[in-house]
Amino acid sequence: MFRDRLNAAIGSSGSLLCVGLDPDPDHLPAVVPRTPEGVLEFCLRTVEATREHAAAFKPNAAFFEAMGHEGVWVLEEVRRAIPRDRIAILDGKRGDIGNTARMYATAIFDRMGFDAATVSPYLGRESLLPFLERRDRGTFVLCRTSNPTAGEVQNARTGDVPLYIAIARMAAEMGDGNAGLVVGATVPEAIAEVRRIAPAAPLLVPGVGAQGGDLAAPAAASGTGPVLINASRSIIYASGEGDYAEAAGRAAAEMAERIANARPS
Amino acid sequence: MFRDRLNAAIGSSGSLLCVGLDPDPDHLPAVVPRTPEGVLEFCLRTVEATREHAAAFKPNAAFFEAMGHEGVWVLEEVRRAIPRDRIAILDGKRGDIGNTARMYATAIFDRMGFDAATVSPYLGRESLLPFLERRDRGTFVLCRTSNPTAGEVQNARTGDVPLYIAIARMAAEMGDGNAGLVVGATVPEAIAEVRRIAPAAPLLVPGVGAQGGDLAAPAAASGTGPVLINASRSIIYASGEGDYAEAAGRAAAEMAERIANARPS
Repeated sequence: MFRDRLNAAIGSSGSLLCVGLDPDPDHLPAVVPRTPEGVLEFCLRTVEATREHAAAFKPNAAFFEAMGHEGVWVLEEVRRAIPRDRIAILDGKRGDIGNTARMYATAIFDRMGFDAATVSPYLGRESLLPFLERRDRGTFVLCRTSNPTAGEVQNARTGDVPLYIAIARMAAEMGDGNAGLVVGATVPEAIAEVRRIAPAAPLLVPGVGAQGGDLAAPAAASGTGPVLINASRSIIYASGEGDYAEAAGRAAAEMAERIANARPS
Repeated sequence: MFRDRLNAAIGSSGSLLCVGLDPDPDHLPAVVPRTPEGVLEFCLRTVEATREHAAAFKPNAAFFEAMGHEGVWVLEEVRRAIPRDRIAILDGKRGDIGNTARMYATAIFDRMGFDAATVSPYLGRESLLPFLERRDRGTFVLCRTSNPTAGEVQNARTGDVPLYIAIARMAAEMGDGNAGLVVGATVPEAIAEVRRIAPAAPLLVPGVGAQGGDLAAPAAASGTGPVLINASRSIIYASGEGDYAEAAGRAAAEMAERIANARPS
């Protein structure tokens, strides 16, 4: 079961931190060659330096796909390097009709071997089902995201509630412990509200660090169910020099400690 | 400008047909080896046999990604084989925060060289902007899709209108001739309504053929602005035998003719 594996990863790392791997050529340290091999080494060293402090890793598909099929090869290698007792989440936000969603699930879970994926609900429950049927894997459904324009769509009304609440209910109804939700740290009131609706659902909370979100709400939400708090840029670009891996390790340790201190005792 | 290239492709082919390339291992003709090379040959022969009758080709990313990085190599080769006077659309339905959406645009437009892409609006206008800023390329925003559960999300209310209408307005406002919309043939009333809001926007209409949608509404919508009508399974799997390419060519010719006959005179 996915939830057991997620809880084990949180337990063995003693951390709620998820390290986001977004290898952006504009932000990589100067010493990293802008080649597939260079990016691979950057990611492998970053994973190695931060694994002690992180329950999960979340490669962002876009940054690998921007290098074409060689970039997808790098992504496959990065996944292999994520320790088996940590959760490997592919952040691809896929969402399509049933037969296509099934192929994305095959690509992410079977071909690449990720433990979990982010998916987008714009096409309704049909697009979530092929992922959620995989009870052995985690599916984090986009619910209320951290970016400034998210509300334009996610606050549309369905009945008496905003769309993102309807999405949270839909996912909670469809999955068991494998139905996770993405809720941004920049909207703490949404985290609390989603947590009330889905007390035990795994939450993936981006938007701390570079995006400026607060730790209090996601830390509080970890009281009843598993929460992963993602930081990407503030960790992987902690140094622009040759010591980037050590700096990432220190930044991950600090963030894990800040998260631990924010948790209700 | 994208719209000029789209109109030229429709003009030179004399067709509104878009051939969807969804190479599904469960449906490929028996003679096609289930290997990257086998799938590549299937796609290349299908493109070659149908190009005379199609204005556009739309590979579906999921079916290639299911073969891992080698499948993405196949996708790159398929794109190269799509004639330069036709429109090559990557159907990936990507949608993410700004800096990530920018990387997807790089991957699809620059790295792989597609003329157009489908994108998902769940994260609001920030997720569309990096695509729509590329005036030389087409961006087809998911608006009202063809699948049975689409309304659960797309009919949520924003002000006085359903979400998909708000999305159509948002895209029309942000782009110029490059802001396209995806509206399914299974919801003809939505096609007519979206066409009223965006009289000149390129429309991409899936859901005819295997999904059972009607041709009348998309054909009528071609009166004021460009329309591409997509068929995938009914063309590429027209024969399960070694004559699949010839059969696809005949199915494409028939579909192009049915579309032409459905257009207002």
